[in-house]
Amino acid sequence: MLANEFSVDAPNVTIKGEEMVSHYDYHTSHVVAGADGIKIVPETKKFEFKTNLHVPKTGVMLIGWGGNNGTTLTSGVYANTHNLVWDTKRGEVKANYHGSLTQCATTYLGQDEKGTTYVAPFKALLPMVNPNDLVIGGWDISKLNIYESARRAHVMEPAMLVQIKDELEKMHPLPAVFDINFVAPNQKDRADNVIPGTKWEQLETVRKQMRDFKEQNKLEKLIILWTANTERYCEVKEGVHMTPEQLLQGIKNNDPEISPSTIYATAAILEHIPYINGSPQNTFVPGLIQLAEREDVAIMGDDFKTGQTKFKSVMADFLISSGLKLTAVVSYNHLGNNDGLNLDFEKCFRSKQISKSSVIDDMVGYNPILYPEGAHPDHRALDEYDSDIFCGGKNIISVHNTCEDSLLAAPLMLDLIILMELFTRVELKDETMKDFHHMNAVYSVLSFLLKAPRTPTGTPVINSLFQQRACMENILRATRGLQPLNNMHLEWKMPVKHN
Amino acid sequence: MLANEFSVDAPNVTIKGEEMVSHYDYHTSHVVAGADGIKIVPETKKFEFKTNLHVPKTGVMLIGWGGNNGTTLTSGVYANTHNLVWDTKRGEVKANYHGSLTQCATTYLGQDEKGTTYVAPFKALLPMVNPNDLVIGGWDISKLNIYESARRAHVMEPAMLVQIKDELEKMHPLPAVFDINFVAPNQKDRADNVIPGTKWEQLETVRKQMRDFKEQNKLEKLIILWTANTERYCEVKEGVHMTPEQLLQGIKNNDPEISPSTIYATAAILEHIPYINGSPQNTFVPGLIQLAEREDVAIMGDDFKTGQTKFKSVMADFLISSGLKLTAVVSYNHLGNNDGLNLDFEKCFRSKQISKSSVIDDMVGYNPILYPEGAHPDHRALDEYDSDIFCGGKNIISVHNTCEDSLLAAPLMLDLIILMELFTRVELKDETMKDFHHMNAVYSVLSFLLKAPRTPTGTPVINSLFQQRACMENILRATRGLQPLNNMHLEWKMPVKHN
Amino acid sequence: MLANEFSVDAPNVTIKGEEMVSHYDYHTSHVVAGADGIKIVPETKKFEFKTNLHVPKTGVMLIGWGGNNGTTLTSGVYANTHNLVWDTKRGEVKANYHGSLTQCATTYLGQDEKGTTYVAPFKALLPMVNPNDLVIGGWDISKLNIYESARRAHVMEPAMLVQIKDELEKMHPLPAVFDINFVAPNQKDRADNVIPGTKWEQLETVRKQMRDFKEQNKLEKLIILWTANTERYCEVKEGVHMTPEQLLQGIKNNDPEISPSTIYATAAILEHIPYINGSPQNTFVPGLIQLAEREDVAIMGDDFKTGQTKFKSVMADFLISSGLKLTAVVSYNHLGNNDGLNLDFEKCFRSKQISKSSVIDDMVGYNPILYPEGAHPDHRALDEYDSDIFCGGKNIISVHNTCEDSLLAAPLMLDLIILMELFTRVELKDETMKDFHHMNAVYSVLSFLLKAPRTPTGTPVINSLFQQRACMENILRATRGLQPLNNMHLEWKMPVKHN
Amino acid sequence: MLANEFSVDAPNVTIKGEEMVSHYDYHTSHVVAGADGIKIVPETKKFEFKTNLHVPKTGVMLIGWGGNNGTTLTSGVYANTHNLVWDTKRGEVKANYHGSLTQCATTYLGQDEKGTTYVAPFKALLPMVNPNDLVIGGWDISKLNIYESARRAHVMEPAMLVQIKDELEKMHPLPAVFDINFVAPNQKDRADNVIPGTKWEQLETVRKQMRDFKEQNKLEKLIILWTANTERYCEVKEGVHMTPEQLLQGIKNNDPEISPSTIYATAAILEHIPYINGSPQNTFVPGLIQLAEREDVAIMGDDFKTGQTKFKSVMADFLISSGLKLTAVVSYNHLGNNDGLNLDFEKCFRSKQISKSSVIDDMVGYNPILYPEGAHPDHRALDEYDSDIFCGGKNIISVHNTCEDSLLAAPLMLDLIILMELFTRVELKDETMKDFHHMNAVYSVLSFLLKAPRTPTGTPVINSLFQQRACMENILRATRGLQPLNNMHLEWKMPVKHN
Repeated sequence: MLANEFSVDAPNVTIKGEEMVSHYDYHTSHVVAGADGIKIVPETKKFEFKTNLHVPKTGVMLIGWGGNNGTTLTSGVYANTHNLVWDTKRGEVKANYHGSLTQCATTYLGQDEKGTTYVAPFKALLPMVNPNDLVIGGWDISKLNIYESARRAHVMEPAMLVQIKDELEKMHPLPAVFDINFVAPNQKDRADNVIPGTKWEQLETVRKQMRDFKEQNKLEKLIILWTANTERYCEVKEGVHMTPEQLLQGIKNNDPEISPSTIYATAAILEHIPYINGSPQNTFVPGLIQLAEREDVAIMGDDFKTGQTKFKSVMADFLISSGLKLTAVVSYNHLGNNDGLNLDFEKCFRSKQISKSSVIDDMVGYNPILYPEGAHPDHRALDEYDSDIFCGGKNIISVHNTCEDSLLAAPLMLDLIILMELFTRVELKDETMKDFHHMNAVYSVLSFLLKAPRTPTGTPVINSLFQQRACMENILRATRGLQPLNNMHLEWKMPVKHN
Repeated sequence: MLANEFSVDAPNVTIKGEEMVSHYDYHTSHVVAGADGIKIVPETKKFEFKTNLHVPKTGVMLIGWGGNNGTTLTSGVYANTHNLVWDTKRGEVKANYHGSLTQCATTYLGQDEKGTTYVAPFKALLPMVNPNDLVIGGWDISKLNIYESARRAHVMEPAMLVQIKDELEKMHPLPAVFDINFVAPNQKDRADNVIPGTKWEQLETVRKQMRDFKEQNKLEKLIILWTANTERYCEVKEGVHMTPEQLLQGIKNNDPEISPSTIYATAAILEHIPYINGSPQNTFVPGLIQLAEREDVAIMGDDFKTGQTKFKSVMADFLISSGLKLTAVVSYNHLGNNDGLNLDFEKCFRSKQISKSSVIDDMVGYNPILYPEGAHPDHRALDEYDSDIFCGGKNIISVHNTCEDSLLAAPLMLDLIILMELFTRVELKDETMKDFHHMNAVYSVLSFLLKAPRTPTGTPVINSLFQQRACMENILRATRGLQPLNNMHLEWKMPVKHN
Repeated sequence: MLANEFSVDAPNVTIKGEEMVSHYDYHTSHVVAGADGIKIVPETKKFEFKTNLHVPKTGVMLIGWGGNNGTTLTSGVYANTHNLVWDTKRGEVKANYHGSLTQCATTYLGQDEKGTTYVAPFKALLPMVNPNDLVIGGWDISKLNIYESARRAHVMEPAMLVQIKDELEKMHPLPAVFDINFVAPNQKDRADNVIPGTKWEQLETVRKQMRDFKEQNKLEKLIILWTANTERYCEVKEGVHMTPEQLLQGIKNNDPEISPSTIYATAAILEHIPYINGSPQNTFVPGLIQLAEREDVAIMGDDFKTGQTKFKSVMADFLISSGLKLTAVVSYNHLGNNDGLNLDFEKCFRSKQISKSSVIDDMVGYNPILYPEGAHPDHRALDEYDSDIFCGGKNIISVHNTCEDSLLAAPLMLDLIILMELFTRVELKDETMKDFHHMNAVYSVLSFLLKAPRTPTGTPVINSLFQQRACMENILRATRGLQPLNNMHLEWKMPVKHN
Repeated sequence: MLANEFSVDAPNVTIKGEEMVSHYDYHTSHVVAGADGIKIVPETKKFEFKTNLHVPKTGVMLIGWGGNNGTTLTSGVYANTHNLVWDTKRGEVKANYHGSLTQCATTYLGQDEKGTTYVAPFKALLPMVNPNDLVIGGWDISKLNIYESARRAHVMEPAMLVQIKDELEKMHPLPAVFDINFVAPNQKDRADNVIPGTKWEQLETVRKQMRDFKEQNKLEKLIILWTANTERYCEVKEGVHMTPEQLLQGIKNNDPEISPSTIYATAAILEHIPYINGSPQNTFVPGLIQLAEREDVAIMGDDFKTGQTKFKSVMADFLISSGLKLTAVVSYNHLGNNDGLNLDFEKCFRSKQISKSSVIDDMVGYNPILYPEGAHPDHRALDEYDSDIFCGGKNIISVHNTCEDSLLAAPLMLDLIILMELFTRVELKDETMKDFHHMNAVYSVLSFLLKAPRTPTGTPVINSLFQQRACMENILRATRGLQPLNNMHLEWKMPVKHN
């Protein structure tokens, strides 16, 4: 049974005004490796969690607003806000948030005395922002309004977009930081909406844009999210990127290896606004991470964990935790849409390769009825998982995935915004600490949503998807005074009769 | 780092001789659904676990020993016992237990003060039977010795089998219960090794075979495992199957709806020997389950959870727990080997279908060089997972699996034997109980290993693979005084500096 | 270079008014198997072809007009007639005839003296009906107009259908022959538009409907095409189905084993209207074929050769003609849309099967946010081709096909109509014949378009797709005095310099 | 019915001693594009074919003998010669030539008066070399004997190889031309068997090796076949590669852009030995082709047409000739074995790419039981064919291919050797020629067997597999006085009764 909301009758939790404090026994253990072997020492630590229950008016500014992800997120939120319904050849479709952990996934609560099982939506674990209430804005290097960009993206049905055309047409991306040195040369053609000046001037402009957006929309909270095309890696250099001071000086010096994304992230930190990096680029140089820690501003990345990578981690987890020896994972990505531009870029660096497609060219050439123009492929991917099984056997699993990446990315971006906003309202302390503090500035608690999750310096990365989800779920439970889910269900395993 | 063994420094655990007792705080919660909504009430229950640490000399009797699974398990264990190495075109292969949870999967222990992460093999959690030490025997309706059966199975490499030919040739299956009424008609041809007499006489014979096997091999413990071809469902009838008394009387009456597998399982229970059902058939009629509970004998089933089903549960878990709306799973099985026999049987019940393969028949007919004889396909399967994603989008994942089912089944059968043996050495009690007791006779703790896991009457089935694994892992941890894994890693999330 | 039309400068071809006569040397050979081995005797036979060049005003009556194929064909033709353009999320789509051999495939003409290669559309080989000019009508057991049926089919985009809504809404299928004994029980619910009376009365009604349609639309030619749901096989009986007389008497006797499709086909033959069977059913009982031959009316079947079967024949051809030993083809069809109804029907005849889907049921059940209603899968198919290769090697080719069957079927149905109309304008004679005659009533020349192509009694079936295409192409070339394509291109293989 | 041999009763064929002469009417047509449109002019040309019926004692020298293809061909031929049988887990395997067009494919002969259809093996069309009689030798840059190389290749079963170990061990590759400048740097490690000296000295050595091999084995004919790793493209330069004279001078000048393969091919031409290039490299520079034409020596290439490319051409042919609009073919190759070495090489030229595999690395790292060493994948490939279908529909065909490339390559190499030997015994003349001549030195008649088939300068490439096969088949038929197969089967289409 679905409980859309629930209370917790926990003696260890107190609520005062908008503040909830939970006293929590954290059970863990450490290893002592000594002369007499490996010894595990269980321990119970006293923690306190303090959560602000007030859900602030929240906005998000997307870097790359006019791209596929940005327009899909924006039009999808508006479609939900207006409860849109549209016609497709498969029948009517209603706006929804499928693919969002917070909106559509559930968490186990327990059974009542009749044996009925209760679950709740993830979003019921603590008060969270409703995606329908998000104020959306952002930057793009192209002037195109969001309706035009959405049409160009070929992701959402025209029959839906036309219903919110008026609203989307009024949305104009802010001028953006642009550096041809960090992107594919052909991006230049799109770049008609850029911030002029030196890197330092750009930083100042971006900071002002953030402040203005917050003020104009009367926001209590703002989140910045990078969802533009992937930049090339910047070359991390001693003297430019290694400390907060170097970084700020580097920007002032207009150093060519300071990337646009690093400028946005620096601006956000200086404005005390959380920043999330949705691409696989090294925005977070060492000096920037230190700056975030020093300023106590939340940052997290890298790269949205949509379909294929998410799946890969599940598969590896499944096979290896079953005792199978996964010997190879071979991946292939056949990208559609704008990503193709960067692929062209990559080709410039490759040695010339003889195309095998010439084999079919003359057949195509023989049929000019069918072939006047070019084609446009969807996003598909193939992964193969090879495992060694019992005594020399082989198990081969081929997984073929067809999807539109932006439709997976958009709800995940919403989760990132909602959960980042939420976790910045949670503070904690252990027995050794006097005051409550935010978690470390690198919010690894969001690892579930990111391909290459960042962790605080010196701490390990957890890639298992189910462990990442358990981490988030159990911490949210802890804030409400609940121990972690242990799945033991001992009550169901008791002997029939006993004395 | 891998710790092949470890100790636990837990004040709540005491070891006396071969008995280990753990005092354990079991954290759970229940739901109260009242007028003022859903309320979760956390609670902590005091449990004690008593584990016998002595690993007994253990045997297993396989029903269907001469089948693909039985011969693969047997030859695989002997290959491991002798550390065999054999030549294949891919290179040398060494005997191993890949695919076995107990032998090849690991469990997380913790970190030491230097930050090194320690894991241990699952088998290190408690003392378990070494598969190399198992005494293997069983029944088959065919007289073929195990070497001949293994060759006929086309699973293990001849270059391996030839090295243990002498041992395998000496293994002769015991005569088996056979009822043509429960299997495909063509099985009759193989049935040259059957127990004569009425069902009651067959029951007595089987009980004696079990006692003899135990005695001849000086076993401390015996496990019975059904791995023969799937029987048709018996028609469960009032007056025959509903109570222990009815069941025994039904056997005495030679009732035609008492299946061979139910005779084996009844015999096992009467001999106080655990019984595991590896096929998807209704061996465990209500009277039999009650008999097991009354006699406090462990039973578990149904159907080995090899490749495809295991995978399906992971996929469903993954998609739905990500908030995606899985709308269809379409499965296709293209079975090889002996399973084909039952497929023929099934066909008898079908309406005649016009084969489309005739389309290629004449091409085949045009080329008598290539086509003198028949063909023999491997095991392959295709599943497709359709999900509705954001705002009307579609995600389609096609999974193609190629494997030899027996090579996945054999290590899983070993896990079932080893873990069933282990869990029958574990007793528990809660605050309301005076004495220690075994778990309920239906050992749902083994659900991870079975496709359609049984649970005690009135308790829900958990199908999530990761929850099933966590259940088993956390109960084993509890016997050693360790709290469940919570994946929270709070220590890695603390602010950099604090006061 | 594409030549949309071309002339042939052949001394052996004469055109008089609307009649073109070609004198043709047909090169063939026969085998003499004697005591001294196999001897091949080449021979050249003199043939004449007479082709009527007048393209008649042509109509088609579809049996099952309101089904997916019927509505797709109808709306597709109207979309082409009006040159429609519609918006989709991939961009604008223009109406086209992709998938039609006659409209979109090309044939090789030759090179000019500069070495330029010329090809022509297949439809340029002889004057053929333009699909835009077809008059479309037909029967359906449902009263739904064609617009409503097309929407219900979920095949064509709403954005296209809405543009021809007025025309489609005015199309109402004629009442149809309906016999619940030949279809799935659930079809009864749709059947609100049926012809009453005995089978003989139904035959008379259908004949009148055909005459009326021809007259009302001032047609010079009419073709009947079965595209309704597949009937069960009728049980062919001595005394009912074996001669034309038995067949007509059987209809008069209201014999229960005379199927609706046989009634339609009999009516067509009696009206001298060509009949094509697009389903895999035995409409063409022996007496009906003899009736067609006696009345010299063209018939052809069975079953539209869309995607998967077409492909299968190409694969078999490819593999075997390369000397590979194809050992197995395993096929799986996962049908969408209405075909499901018949699947349900089939299930009734099957023994009960234990669903494995229960494994995921409880996961689905755990998430009531996502799962209020049912799902509706597309058409997909998997085939696997196993071949034995050199010295014990294996080659496995898995082919996964995603498509909407009706979009493949509609252009193929148009080809059948157009080519059937064309070939009934072609007559031939060999040296032994005084007069020109139509081909045998069973028009095997259309084999390329049918899954289980019919051939005249006693003649072999050719399944190779490329041979089927060559047959049709070379016969059309022959009518214009052109020898077959031999692909030898000797002129390109001559030595550089010669004396 | 299979006819292993057959005679032809053709009045236009005469046999004198070992010479067969066929007078042949070649039917073709040309296009005249004029003011009044496109006109096709059919014509019949008189040709004569002269075929030497004596099958010579033939040898082949493989460049790259010790590689996967070379050792597979060699061991496979010996396995056939000795009629070997070996044991595998699937059962006994017998040596065979599956995959060879000449040995295993059939050709249609005709029907006898009873309607029995006769086919013959391709090898029965004309007397051809039996692969069992081939003398095999060659070069390799590694000293390893052929048994050791075959084991290292992981292609053939050890149980087969061990039976011919003595013979294979005695086979030692000749020292080979090696130029590190044309291959991957890591090939250097294998290169312990190379010809010293300048390029001209190498040319002389290779010519002597050819003469010696022919003499020592008393061969009447020798064929050279390149099957070594692919070289990089040489940079074709004016003054070095454009004429025979430049080429020979370039070798004398030790020009760095003269590749090893060009040295082998030049040597072969100068020795009047046919040369076949099985890799996708530009061995055949303009000067070399002119040299072959001047010396009237047969050459042909490039690249063996095994599995995937062959298939791709069939697919394109199938889709487009059905009137479907193939919009994209996306290919992925996941190569095993030695090809990996060149892939590494290729990587050197690419820009650095961030590996995504790190996602699963820590899971692997968590399980040291399973992961001590590296893995070795098979050869697999995925191709996807997207087509636009009727009115905006989409058809997607995914083809997944698993095979061992060498097992497909070896029989194809045998076909190339056998057919090249055969076609060099065929001469032809048309009406304008006084004497018989070989075909043009570039034997495009073998296009069926090569990925990027060469054609004589100025003539078009035919890529359709079925057209390539028809070309070869119809030319062989012509040499025996038979007209091409036309697939019309008019005799099966005649009306039932006629006057």
